[in-house]
Amino acid sequence: MTDNDTPSPSRRSLLGWGGAGLALGAAAAGGAVAMARPDDESPPNASTAVPFHGPHQAGIATPVQDRLHFAAFDVTTDDREEFVQLLKDWTQAARRMTAGHPVGDGAYGGLPEAPPDDTGEALGLKPSRLTLTIGFGPSLFEKFDLADRRPDALVDLPKFAGDALDKNRSGGDLCVQACADDPQVAVHAIRNLARIGFGKVVIRWSQLGFGKTSSTTPEAQTPRNLMGFKDGTRNIAGTETDRLRKFVWASEKDGPRWMAGGSYLVARRIRMHIETWDRTSLQEQEDIFGRDKGEGAPVGKAKERDEPFLKAMKPDAHVRLAHPDANHGATILRRGYSFTDGTDGLGRLDAGLFFLAYQRDVREGFIPIQRNLATDALNEYIQHVGSALFAIPPGVRDKDDWWGRTLFSEEA
Amino acid sequence: MTDNDTPSPSRRSLLGWGGAGLALGAAAAGGAVAMARPDDESPPNASTAVPFHGPHQAGIATPVQDRLHFAAFDVTTDDREEFVQLLKDWTQAARRMTAGHPVGDGAYGGLPEAPPDDTGEALGLKPSRLTLTIGFGPSLFEKFDLADRRPDALVDLPKFAGDALDKNRSGGDLCVQACADDPQVAVHAIRNLARIGFGKVVIRWSQLGFGKTSSTTPEAQTPRNLMGFKDGTRNIAGTETDRLRKFVWASEKDGPRWMAGGSYLVARRIRMHIETWDRTSLQEQEDIFGRDKGEGAPVGKAKERDEPFLKAMKPDAHVRLAHPDANHGATILRRGYSFTDGTDGLGRLDAGLFFLAYQRDVREGFIPIQRNLATDALNEYIQHVGSALFAIPPGVRDKDDWWGRTLFSEEA
Repeated sequence: MTDNDTPSPSRRSLLGWGGAGLALGAAAAGGAVAMARPDDESPPNASTAVPFHGPHQAGIATPVQDRLHFAAFDVTTDDREEFVQLLKDWTQAARRMTAGHPVGDGAYGGLPEAPPDDTGEALGLKPSRLTLTIGFGPSLFEKFDLADRRPDALVDLPKFAGDALDKNRSGGDLCVQACADDPQVAVHAIRNLARIGFGKVVIRWSQLGFGKTSSTTPEAQTPRNLMGFKDGTRNIAGTETDRLRKFVWASEKDGPRWMAGGSYLVARRIRMHIETWDRTSLQEQEDIFGRDKGEGAPVGKAKERDEPFLKAMKPDAHVRLAHPDANHGATILRRGYSFTDGTDGLGRLDAGLFFLAYQRDVREGFIPIQRNLATDALNEYIQHVGSALFAIPPGVRDKDDWWGRTLFSEEA
Repeated sequence: MTDNDTPSPSRRSLLGWGGAGLALGAAAAGGAVAMARPDDESPPNASTAVPFHGPHQAGIATPVQDRLHFAAFDVTTDDREEFVQLLKDWTQAARRMTAGHPVGDGAYGGLPEAPPDDTGEALGLKPSRLTLTIGFGPSLFEKFDLADRRPDALVDLPKFAGDALDKNRSGGDLCVQACADDPQVAVHAIRNLARIGFGKVVIRWSQLGFGKTSSTTPEAQTPRNLMGFKDGTRNIAGTETDRLRKFVWASEKDGPRWMAGGSYLVARRIRMHIETWDRTSLQEQEDIFGRDKGEGAPVGKAKERDEPFLKAMKPDAHVRLAHPDANHGATILRRGYSFTDGTDGLGRLDAGLFFLAYQRDVREGFIPIQRNLATDALNEYIQHVGSALFAIPPGVRDKDDWWGRTLFSEEA
């Protein structure tokens, strides 16, 4: 907590709001702080803040929060300086929001003649473990003279068997992943970033996720997807430093240097044919996944976390095809969410999995795994309808750092 | 708790699931029970069950849960007997799901050759105060020889100034409102009812709500809508028996008899022009609502719950026009939710308020209030894009009763 971060007293103080910036205690690494509002009467451990500063961005190895609002943006300004200023403004807003503060100095900037600095719908809510994670899409590198800084690993994803991609739900120059335990906090964050970006960026598409489908906490229950199954049981845990280094964080050696400490994010909107699935027999469902439905145990095993015996499964079982042993060890960190976006024209739920996977190199992670899933028995019941890939830059080190600084300011 | 409700042991017992029906204690009125899963290690008060049985349906006077999944259905069967059987099947499924059980006997009905009785994604989740509330739309009374049973109060809503209704988000023969503190529990419930109704009903439209905007608990904080304001401060509380009787529950005198103990629900999808609102000055925002933004106090007052002095507000202020004193005392019970359904073609958030209001007679509740709002200053920033009205039958009395019995079985 620095003095810069403390909102100056405003007229809101009189009504009990100016004190929102009061720091309750400074956390360890990176100068990040856990904040709570003084008028909040719930116990301080109920819903804390996740440190914003660090060598990696939060929201990747962070224990998965309950809710998601994900937005892809297109850049509309041609002015590099203006865009860099936006990244700085966004960083400062993200720093404040993840700490549980409203955007801006004081709750509303004080001037009744000006639009409020913060839209207000998260006032009174807890930080809710909000994380904001920014990413840069391939198309961004066609702007601002960035072509020679595009990472080799930021490929154009190949077309996979069965893809039915909607371009209005794919791609994007930028992305921001907002995860929080309270959806109103996640929605508030994306909305305020979009507001700050008015005239410079525009939302290309966005996705709400209401239920996490993965855990990065080893002891936690694996959540169920909308097919009713546990999937991705052996996910990378946020505490597994070695596996994170091996499979998630890009290193200086990988190149380019500005990406060291970053990662690569694949986002896929996977629609499930819920109604067809629901009329499939239990046996077939379990054969398709290669697990039993109740416990989540691999075929022939008793417990969810028992090591799967892949050859006991049908050759086209999902677990068998997705397992690292079937993919030369390829391993990704999954952070997906279930979505339901109402109903389509035929009365079917527009529902499924918004798949989010982080990896050190997509060419050794998502791409080979997804290719291997071409024969997945599950494909009869799902369809990939949106797709995007983003380079996730390293973390923001301290209060003077900003999102994308290594890309825009450092030597290549 | 009755023996009928206890799932018989199934093969799931072996894997730790068969015991899910264990009753921990029977609640007071209506024979309803509070359930918890034996393998749930969280404290028993963390997320309990709301009694399903009672003179009124749950989900109206019940303290407002955090999340919503609302579905409107059209009936596709012409067979009255088949439809009545569906209402009975739905009731039994609702009884089980609201108590935290999966649908059906045991988690999956036991037969591997059959589709599971429950889709499974709520296994392991708590009851989360799930309520399921059914309603009958005007168009239902054109079917099954019900024309002469249509309540006078179930009018066709008039067209209001500024309405821009999408028929694909309006109307419906039936509705089910699912409210729960966990969205996965609410989505699971609607999805399973749709599954059970396959071939007899089809979802016409559905709406997810991620944040409640009203409270029916007098001491609770009034939540904020997506404009950042507290609205509907003086809502009817679930404990205010007299106001509920006066403004919410239909009585036998009101007619028809089958509706005694029921209510009428207006659902309106209200899109907010978020981006325009966010560029409006604080002063103008506060003038439009007639409250200050930070505290929510009416103009000239200090605290949210101070009695508003309407004449201190601008003539077109929202609070002034919506207040009972400006509407001959008209009062409704509000239960709305914020929604965000991604982004429209212009990069604007498709977000707003899914307004839900219960009342004894819509002709003395929503209709006069909404007419009075024709000059509301807020109208520049909002648009009603969906609309529906439903007769909400009385509660399910006991384990032998079912949704709609008074409509289909009792004398008129």
